[in-house]
Amino acid sequence: MNRTQVGIIGAGPAGLMLSHLLSRSGIDSVVIDNRTREEIENTVRAGILEADSARLLVDTGVSDRVLRDGHPHEGIDLRFGGESHRVDFRKLVGESVWLYPQTAVFVDLANARERDHGDVRFGVSGTEVDVTTPSMRFVDSDGRPQEVRCDLLVGADGSRSVCRNEVPESVRTHRSREYPFAWFGIITEAPRSAPELVYAHSPRGFALISQRTDTHQRMYFQCDPETDPSEWTDDRIWEELQARVAGPDGFTLKEGPVTEKTVLRFRSFVAEPMRHGSLLLAGDAAHTVPPTGAKGLNLALADVRVLSELIERALRRNDPAALDEYGPRALDRVWKAQHFSYWMTTMLHTLPGATDFDVRRQLGELASVVASESGSRYLAEGYTGRWPA
Amino acid sequence: MNRTQVGIIGAGPAGLMLSHLLSRSGIDSVVIDNRTREEIENTVRAGILEADSARLLVDTGVSDRVLRDGHPHEGIDLRFGGESHRVDFRKLVGESVWLYPQTAVFVDLANARERDHGDVRFGVSGTEVDVTTPSMRFVDSDGRPQEVRCDLLVGADGSRSVCRNEVPESVRTHRSREYPFAWFGIITEAPRSAPELVYAHSPRGFALISQRTDTHQRMYFQCDPETDPSEWTDDRIWEELQARVAGPDGFTLKEGPVTEKTVLRFRSFVAEPMRHGSLLLAGDAAHTVPPTGAKGLNLALADVRVLSELIERALRRNDPAALDEYGPRALDRVWKAQHFSYWMTTMLHTLPGATDFDVRRQLGELASVVASESGSRYLAEGYTGRWPA
Repeated sequence: MNRTQVGIIGAGPAGLMLSHLLSRSGIDSVVIDNRTREEIENTVRAGILEADSARLLVDTGVSDRVLRDGHPHEGIDLRFGGESHRVDFRKLVGESVWLYPQTAVFVDLANARERDHGDVRFGVSGTEVDVTTPSMRFVDSDGRPQEVRCDLLVGADGSRSVCRNEVPESVRTHRSREYPFAWFGIITEAPRSAPELVYAHSPRGFALISQRTDTHQRMYFQCDPETDPSEWTDDRIWEELQARVAGPDGFTLKEGPVTEKTVLRFRSFVAEPMRHGSLLLAGDAAHTVPPTGAKGLNLALADVRVLSELIERALRRNDPAALDEYGPRALDRVWKAQHFSYWMTTMLHTLPGATDFDVRRQLGELASVVASESGSRYLAEGYTGRWPA
Repeated sequence: MNRTQVGIIGAGPAGLMLSHLLSRSGIDSVVIDNRTREEIENTVRAGILEADSARLLVDTGVSDRVLRDGHPHEGIDLRFGGESHRVDFRKLVGESVWLYPQTAVFVDLANARERDHGDVRFGVSGTEVDVTTPSMRFVDSDGRPQEVRCDLLVGADGSRSVCRNEVPESVRTHRSREYPFAWFGIITEAPRSAPELVYAHSPRGFALISQRTDTHQRMYFQCDPETDPSEWTDDRIWEELQARVAGPDGFTLKEGPVTEKTVLRFRSFVAEPMRHGSLLLAGDAAHTVPPTGAKGLNLALADVRVLSELIERALRRNDPAALDEYGPRALDRVWKAQHFSYWMTTMLHTLPGATDFDVRRQLGELASVVASESGSRYLAEGYTGRWPA
């Protein structure tokens, strides 16, 4: 039997970053994940980091690769009525965001944990957590049964978390909202069509034009959740994407072969409380957001930034009550981010059954937001994660 | 047969203000209305004037009574989670609004038209408009058939406008949105419960605490549109209102006898185009908004401010093309106001079938708006009607 101070279930960005931050405070942890490192690396996810998220990576010594390989984006393009309207984050809130794939964040964290001799066990199976002992049991990747006793357990096991179900039904509340649409996402081998993300409202539905590298780009368009990607040829995909960004200014997308296509479903979800006894939840295990505002990864990192500070107070400074602050502090940001993600989603997507009034009202909203410096700044605060407390 | 330059159908605030402004530019008009002056005076309507609306009354010589009998409100109270959060318009946008009943605006305008010998015919019947001649026919209040030929016709005949149906179906678009709730409105004989309007979000639904005079107050609470006011005793009304504003700060409403109770249904509506040949639409005839943002009367006055300027250019300065500007200029504000009214409505009301997530997300939105100076200013811009163009 092993012992550690903090047992962390889930080696995604939330779990690894927490382990990293705790080790900097002299606190031991063991991180386990059912997936292999390769499986996690091959999960393609969104890639917008708030400035504070990028700073966390750099300033705590994970890696400064984001500064070299990432791309600072100082705004976004809100495109509607066939016209582009730039929301200039730098000017409005003095911050930019970073285009840097979640996979790269994972690789940086996994490398940093390895470099610092962190205890991270990928590819485990049969994971069981016992919140009363507390402890984790699992079979390691070599087939050996393991039990790790700990002071605290952290469920950072993603949107299909099993840890969150360890909070008894009698005390937990799961709140969620489904959306009647999904995103059709592609990767294309083509040059960039725009220097920054383009969020496009159109009567045909939402489209997001994003970037990845000099040679590969990521784009999405709103679709029916039941859409079968195999029914969409490259030609049909490009026709739809071009139609959604078309306008009198002649903006067009640079086309190339579509190398990947998937339909991405999403929902809004929050599990409360985020702490139950020795169990704490972080990241997607506690909350998921629609991808429209790019908040998912950033919220996960914000959770563990707060959590590492409170665990340090609880375990190193003999202040166990510090953990009581976790829920209230994390949830204030979570619900603001939930609202922001919902707002960006409903402002830009066309709801099935939307009337002509609804679409025209959205255009009235978009016109208000871009015409008003306050409206634009309010949006920029949400997008950059700079919510006033 | 009579002749005038502008025939105006509807002697509400939009029609009378237009007639007043035109007469200041030396343009004749005849205003007709099916209702008697007394009937209009007894229609109780909302009473928040944007500063620009109050200025229009004072600066164009209608009356300065608003400055004496009106009450400047320098903010509103957004109440949620049982706590009050003041949005300070004066600080945020340098403007206040005025509490001044729509009936008083009507009386001031009707008196001003009478004082200036304006031609206003109340209590007419059998009104017909002919947009090709153009002309209006009606039977006046003495039973005499009348025909008035004119250069332009203005439909300012309210939310059940007949004029707007003179725009042929082939060219018109009517866009609307229904809401699955109504307002239960009361007048009570009681002192003020708060110095400014209180917009209250609660899990039981929205409530609005408004003021009227030192001795009579107006309050509303969200209800099912099918609610029968006769089933609500004073006790039941007060219990519901108190529950919706209750909070740990101990805020309570000052109760008194309920002297009036009505269920107010509403919707969002926009008719386009606002001009068709010699016919122009203004105010509720062209658009209605939910009452939540108090935009209805203000939009009507904004319409006729633009319209009077364009009619003057068309008829006095021989520039008929000026009228082409009416739709685009008025509609920019109309759609921003539509969005603002929708936003205030959906942020504060509980939708039937709303999940726990939806209610919690609303609280996240309200928290974001009051915590962020930009968010508060964006709201204040909408409420005071100070939209950047």
